[in-house]
Amino acid sequence: MLFRQFFDGVSSTYTYLLASAPGREAVLIDPVKEQVEQYLTAIGQLGLRLVKAIDTHTHADHITALGDLRDQTRCISIMGEYTQADCVSYRVSDGEILDTDGIRLRALYTPGHTNESFSFVLAPEAPRAVFSGDVLMIRGTGRTDFQNGDPGKSWDSITQTLFALPDETALYPAHDYKGWTSSSIGEERRYNPRLAGKTREQYIEIMNNLKLPNPKMMDVAIPANLGCGLDAPQGKRG
Amino acid sequence: MLFRQFFDGVSSTYTYLLASAPGREAVLIDPVKEQVEQYLTAIGQLGLRLVKAIDTHTHADHITALGDLRDQTRCISIMGEYTQADCVSYRVSDGEILDTDGIRLRALYTPGHTNESFSFVLAPEAPRAVFSGDVLMIRGTGRTDFQNGDPGKSWDSITQTLFALPDETALYPAHDYKGWTSSSIGEERRYNPRLAGKTREQYIEIMNNLKLPNPKMMDVAIPANLGCGLDAPQGKRG
Repeated sequence: MLFRQFFDGVSSTYTYLLASAPGREAVLIDPVKEQVEQYLTAIGQLGLRLVKAIDTHTHADHITALGDLRDQTRCISIMGEYTQADCVSYRVSDGEILDTDGIRLRALYTPGHTNESFSFVLAPEAPRAVFSGDVLMIRGTGRTDFQNGDPGKSWDSITQTLFALPDETALYPAHDYKGWTSSSIGEERRYNPRLAGKTREQYIEIMNNLKLPNPKMMDVAIPANLGCGLDAPQGKRG
Repeated sequence: MLFRQFFDGVSSTYTYLLASAPGREAVLIDPVKEQVEQYLTAIGQLGLRLVKAIDTHTHADHITALGDLRDQTRCISIMGEYTQADCVSYRVSDGEILDTDGIRLRALYTPGHTNESFSFVLAPEAPRAVFSGDVLMIRGTGRTDFQNGDPGKSWDSITQTLFALPDETALYPAHDYKGWTSSSIGEERRYNPRLAGKTREQYIEIMNNLKLPNPKMMDVAIPANLGCGLDAPQGKRG
């Protein structure tokens, strides 16, 4: 399998490129508008054809590349079925499998960070990895204080849906801020400080008291991302 | 196998943690002083025991964690046989194999970025990956204008030693500045803009005319790294 992780240093976003082999159809998960040229270079040099671009949710901290990639490659843009982004070409349902030339991803509805967040499990019959967006992160979890976030739903998505995956499943989130590039379900079950040894009530209490400032890009990014990032000029981020 | 890549955002350095499985002995390649706590957290939570810390060369852009890791974990600090860092516990020779509880790394002398740079090939009998330090980077190569760098030797190390590895060998450099986290030998042979379609003479000409400013940390980092980073206070970087 061909697997590449890209990092956008401004927003600390990870983007994932997957294909069964060089020369085959490819899928991108959580692409960033300002990095489109990098993705297209890699895709071209690896001889891939981009056919799907997926956002796990409506991001508040960077502008999506979904619209640009759709326009430039004719790929299908994909989000979960509860997205408010009308420009998305295809809305995936909970449990549905997306097959990209042999790369199989199962969509899982995992609300909490937002009410429309999905995760995607690679090779769902024998899970190898999960792309968890901002719901479950490495030794952290995504904030739940805007975009209809809900700490109780975040707890349920993580403990009932994601932690039902095998311990050895690799975890690839949409962000990391400390320089970690991956983790595993087993590690997060045992060592995530917001979750390990905590009750649902304690988790809700923690999340309701994070007192985080709004993301710098939030007022620009959310409206732009509801339009698949097409109306946001490149290079105008903070 | 257990494999983790860490990223130090200040110096754009990649550090690699390798072990055959959770609970086993581990090796770190190119660790950064300011990230020691992150490495030790990961190592502890994965139930690993750090036994080797390797620097591919004397870094000029960040301070090594070799001395701190040796003091805190009693691991062996390792560099190539031509290093000037007298504090290093063990100097590896060209072609030598380091075995860490089943993780086998072959040391390859690859001068050019510096005159004491080594690369390390994972599973050398059927190469899976090469940790190339600053000699070969993703779509780039390490500068050759200080620390006895030599563009002719850089060309020879890359084209004769590293490009002799199978095309599918994954490439993990010590740095990337564009958000790419890995490549492969085949990709660099075909698409590295300083190398593909170039002659040795053209490469030397390119490298001799890069006109790069010195790394911000250079005057601090090189002397500090010749002392394994022990005399440099944490948190004092620019």
